[in-house]
Amino acid sequence: MTRSLTYKILEKHLISGNLLPGEEISIKVDQTLTQDSTGTMVYLQLEAMNIKEIKTDLSVAYIDHNTLQTGFENADDHEFIKSVAQKYGIIYSKPGNGICHQLHLENFSKPGGTLLGSDSHTPTSGGMGMLAIGTGGLDVAVAMASGQYHLKVPKVLNVRLKGQLRPWVSAKDVILYILGKLTVKGGVGKVIEYSGEGLKSLSLTDRATITNMGAELGATTSIFPSDKITFNYLKAQGREKDWVELKGDDGADYDDILEIDLSEVVSMVAKPHSPDNVASTGSLKGLKVDQILIGSCTNSSYKDLMKVASILKDKKIHPDVSLGIAPGSSSILKMLSDNGGLSIFISAGARILECSCGPCIGMGQAPKSKGISLRTFNRNFCGRSGTKDADIYLVSPETAAISSIKGYLEDPVILGDGIRIDEPNQYDNSDAYFIYGGTGMSTISMGPNIKPFPVNNPLTDALEGRLLLKAGDNVTTDDIMPSNAKLLPYRSNIPYLSKYCFYGLDLDFHKKCLENNGGFILGGDNYGQGSSREHAALVPLYLGIKMILAKSFARIHKANLINSGILPLELLDPNDYAKLDEMDQLIINDLKIKLQNKKPIEIWNKTKNISVKAQFTGSQRDIDILLCGGYLHYTKVRLGE
Amino acid sequence: MTRSLTYKILEKHLISGNLLPGEEISIKVDQTLTQDSTGTMVYLQLEAMNIKEIKTDLSVAYIDHNTLQTGFENADDHEFIKSVAQKYGIIYSKPGNGICHQLHLENFSKPGGTLLGSDSHTPTSGGMGMLAIGTGGLDVAVAMASGQYHLKVPKVLNVRLKGQLRPWVSAKDVILYILGKLTVKGGVGKVIEYSGEGLKSLSLTDRATITNMGAELGATTSIFPSDKITFNYLKAQGREKDWVELKGDDGADYDDILEIDLSEVVSMVAKPHSPDNVASTGSLKGLKVDQILIGSCTNSSYKDLMKVASILKDKKIHPDVSLGIAPGSSSILKMLSDNGGLSIFISAGARILECSCGPCIGMGQAPKSKGISLRTFNRNFCGRSGTKDADIYLVSPETAAISSIKGYLEDPVILGDGIRIDEPNQYDNSDAYFIYGGTGMSTISMGPNIKPFPVNNPLTDALEGRLLLKAGDNVTTDDIMPSNAKLLPYRSNIPYLSKYCFYGLDLDFHKKCLENNGGFILGGDNYGQGSSREHAALVPLYLGIKMILAKSFARIHKANLINSGILPLELLDPNDYAKLDEMDQLIINDLKIKLQNKKPIEIWNKTKNISVKAQFTGSQRDIDILLCGGYLHYTKVRLGE
Repeated sequence: MTRSLTYKILEKHLISGNLLPGEEISIKVDQTLTQDSTGTMVYLQLEAMNIKEIKTDLSVAYIDHNTLQTGFENADDHEFIKSVAQKYGIIYSKPGNGICHQLHLENFSKPGGTLLGSDSHTPTSGGMGMLAIGTGGLDVAVAMASGQYHLKVPKVLNVRLKGQLRPWVSAKDVILYILGKLTVKGGVGKVIEYSGEGLKSLSLTDRATITNMGAELGATTSIFPSDKITFNYLKAQGREKDWVELKGDDGADYDDILEIDLSEVVSMVAKPHSPDNVASTGSLKGLKVDQILIGSCTNSSYKDLMKVASILKDKKIHPDVSLGIAPGSSSILKMLSDNGGLSIFISAGARILECSCGPCIGMGQAPKSKGISLRTFNRNFCGRSGTKDADIYLVSPETAAISSIKGYLEDPVILGDGIRIDEPNQYDNSDAYFIYGGTGMSTISMGPNIKPFPVNNPLTDALEGRLLLKAGDNVTTDDIMPSNAKLLPYRSNIPYLSKYCFYGLDLDFHKKCLENNGGFILGGDNYGQGSSREHAALVPLYLGIKMILAKSFARIHKANLINSGILPLELLDPNDYAKLDEMDQLIINDLKIKLQNKKPIEIWNKTKNISVKAQFTGSQRDIDILLCGGYLHYTKVRLGE
Repeated sequence: MTRSLTYKILEKHLISGNLLPGEEISIKVDQTLTQDSTGTMVYLQLEAMNIKEIKTDLSVAYIDHNTLQTGFENADDHEFIKSVAQKYGIIYSKPGNGICHQLHLENFSKPGGTLLGSDSHTPTSGGMGMLAIGTGGLDVAVAMASGQYHLKVPKVLNVRLKGQLRPWVSAKDVILYILGKLTVKGGVGKVIEYSGEGLKSLSLTDRATITNMGAELGATTSIFPSDKITFNYLKAQGREKDWVELKGDDGADYDDILEIDLSEVVSMVAKPHSPDNVASTGSLKGLKVDQILIGSCTNSSYKDLMKVASILKDKKIHPDVSLGIAPGSSSILKMLSDNGGLSIFISAGARILECSCGPCIGMGQAPKSKGISLRTFNRNFCGRSGTKDADIYLVSPETAAISSIKGYLEDPVILGDGIRIDEPNQYDNSDAYFIYGGTGMSTISMGPNIKPFPVNNPLTDALEGRLLLKAGDNVTTDDIMPSNAKLLPYRSNIPYLSKYCFYGLDLDFHKKCLENNGGFILGGDNYGQGSSREHAALVPLYLGIKMILAKSFARIHKANLINSGILPLELLDPNDYAKLDEMDQLIINDLKIKLQNKKPIEIWNKTKNISVKAQFTGSQRDIDILLCGGYLHYTKVRLGE
């Protein structure tokens, strides 16, 4: 029987269920990772599960998000995470070490393994042939506690690469090109599996750039085969023992196929405010630029930065441009320091920023008002940069570098003959920033900003309340729970964050929730798109939201709602959306039996004296989780507490 | 006639007045510097003076304070400052270049010259034999517009150094030792002039560390002779042509003399929460440490960081310590990158922070709650770190480095034989971060956060209003106008800042000012101590404060009040303080004539139907400034507008 690489890995890790698209299965989770902005919640949840030891082969807690530390909250969070890591034998990565995904690739990712991470760009490790999935934090906590993860078997889209990239065109351009073809919804419910002879010309970190931004396609994950190139990278990291050869079988049955001729890809740009709003760099040439930033989990590898160094050598940054460079890891910074790359950056006038996520997640380097900023990052959502009226363009490192000299957007193709940056034969292997846990220490350090996370109650048979918000289509997790430099330090303080819930859509939402003792929300299509942050579910839970009705839901957010014990219902007839208004009093009866029997659920609008019908489209397990009052209760029962 | 070095420089620059202690003189200002947190206001004021060209030989606008950029405000400020710099031919130093004082020493300071800077640590350049004074921003703006600065002739305290420092004891320990002897008030009204054979063992940057923290003594400035060591440093910077030999005459008449035997100095620590609360490092040995930070204008030189590298070589930072290192300038970072020093830091597990002031001014790296942080910085005031209950200890780079390995406060003397770090023969001379202005461009860029600064009206003969606040002794400029990571980005927005005026003392102060259309403030002794920030005067001006009555005033703040046209009056009988209460209605009549005739001023308390008497103790020029409605009006008149 011929198998895709994706199904081979799923099969090897299958614990229960049938490996058929759409079926729910549970798989063994080999590794987990967290970062600090989602991590505090993950470890609070882990602590609440009251386990003796974690069940994964390896779990790592990275500190890379809240590294500016403008208040005590961040250092307290770091200390809390470190103390939990010590207790359970989780590896702790100190701030300054770099970005979780880059570090995981360097130190821990393994071809053929499974990785669950509380960050949407966890698929970066898919560049190494690992099945690496980003999820809400509770799923990661449960994976540590139980060693398992439940998911719907995804479809597999095979992207076949042929040909070779032209000079000055790189992996970032490839994924932007694919985003242009598939859009930000193109990967939903799918794993994107790469194959073809074009692979040969993509280094391991090139591949990781592509799987990283598979997150922007909405894909469950993306994956490359493990081949000689994978071996060479692992060997350079001193980890050749972790290598196995892996690929999909010839003639494997894929749900869909996309052929891409790499030689047809040109330098690409994603225009404001979406990663799929792409155009060729050439078509936008000449756009005056104020700021350029190079780094993030997408483009901060050794190869990326050495390409930048080769372009900046003996040049100066344009006086009107602020160029910031944040290497992906301390090892890369050290290698650049040792080989003169960093020296080139400084001689050119670049700002050297700490190895961390930094401006990619809005932590610092906000552009000026109405500024134009080119970034090698992965998202250019409106306002994410910290400046609401700034325009962010996503570009390759090559485009960033040449544009920083010119002062305007320039296609690197003007540089003429290509250069070749080889992967190093040996990466620097300092591990001074890692603390290996398992000391048995059990004093958990909880600073005053770390508040208990909210826990739901078992679902009741009748729900009654007001419709507190009527939102439109494509509500993002940023709309629900804004994330910026001012709020990110409060990720472990749900009561504080709750004051800013839906702040951009309705300044009074928090107040309305308090006055009405919670209630319901109505959304349009694709409710909850965007990041994996479970705060977009935990905060509504804290505010007493019991049910969210929408035309349709984004996948991860729907899972986060179920995990939090909030009922996500879809309108049977989308036209009924128009029949409901804010502050209508809604009543649902006989809820449990209808859920159990998978029957339509009638929602009586007491204010208007009409009814609309909705359905719950999750699995039996989802229903069980909701009845328990959320995934934490559900898991505690199953772990035998 | 024998002269001190200080008087020689003053004499050479004297424009008017008699060079006698306590007399008011005006001197020629050769150079000015600004940083971005005070700079926006300086350049708004300069613009308001409507001049054609600046009168200094050289003026530099550095960007080093607001470099985190968590909102658009900072980049807008940078752009504004850059545009004014272009207009007037002021040199603009881009963010990432480093800290103003370190950069000025490297690139522009000249023995025998005068420098005025809108930063209290401007005396750093005194390490090079320059008379370098920190002032409020308006003084710097006026210096650029007129080429002059008015000051009271200071006394001169001669510190005679003999002997040689022991191994692992360094310049930071010397200035902490002096702070222990003289206290934070010991330098008030004085220039501290160093001499003696002990000079020979102090490198130029060692001397700059000592003059830098002369600010903590309250001194007008501190100064070293210019000798062979000065020459060698200038030569290494490619600036030997700027050298002249300079020293005080043998047998010069000093107001006071302090002899210090360098061989008696041991490693020192300043304990929370004052730079003069010193103890020997040995006496505090073993104190468990959470965070260590190396950098700031005090200790971020090449020599400082190479000492740290020599201690960290082949060592690892203790797992419980977060060590951050911020080099003082991009040149130093490049030199460390090129010579392997940076590589040592990374291999040890240090966080490499951007070349800027950063955590020294509370911008980032706030310690954890109740954290213990060792810093090579210059101030350890309570809360300045961003964490109110943290304890900050000021230490030398040597002590910081050894303690980062141990995890507790350690005396570097345990390292045994000393090491010798020579000053480099050639410093890196990249100037990629400097933009040389004078393009004649005159479009001034003003982002939406940049608001006009408040301007006062000529003093009226009668004042009436309510006493809006009755404050105690030792009110600091931090009390008046708090400065932290959340407010520092708003330094160019007085209306916004005004909401936080006296926030810690009276949450309703802002509201009271609005409701009463301004009024008066009553303070105790030493009102307005602390930093030089003129925002502590501009914000009360904006809020309609017309007069401040106190038992006594701190010197710089009193000058800033006069510059802003706010009348500072001192109670003739301090016991009258008890007779006044908040919200009393106060009336002053015949003010102008009493000021002109230097008569006591009667304040009638209409509420209580009593009177108290006060006096104004400034100079005739101060009276003229007040009558004009502030220094800006006064200067515009004199510049012939």
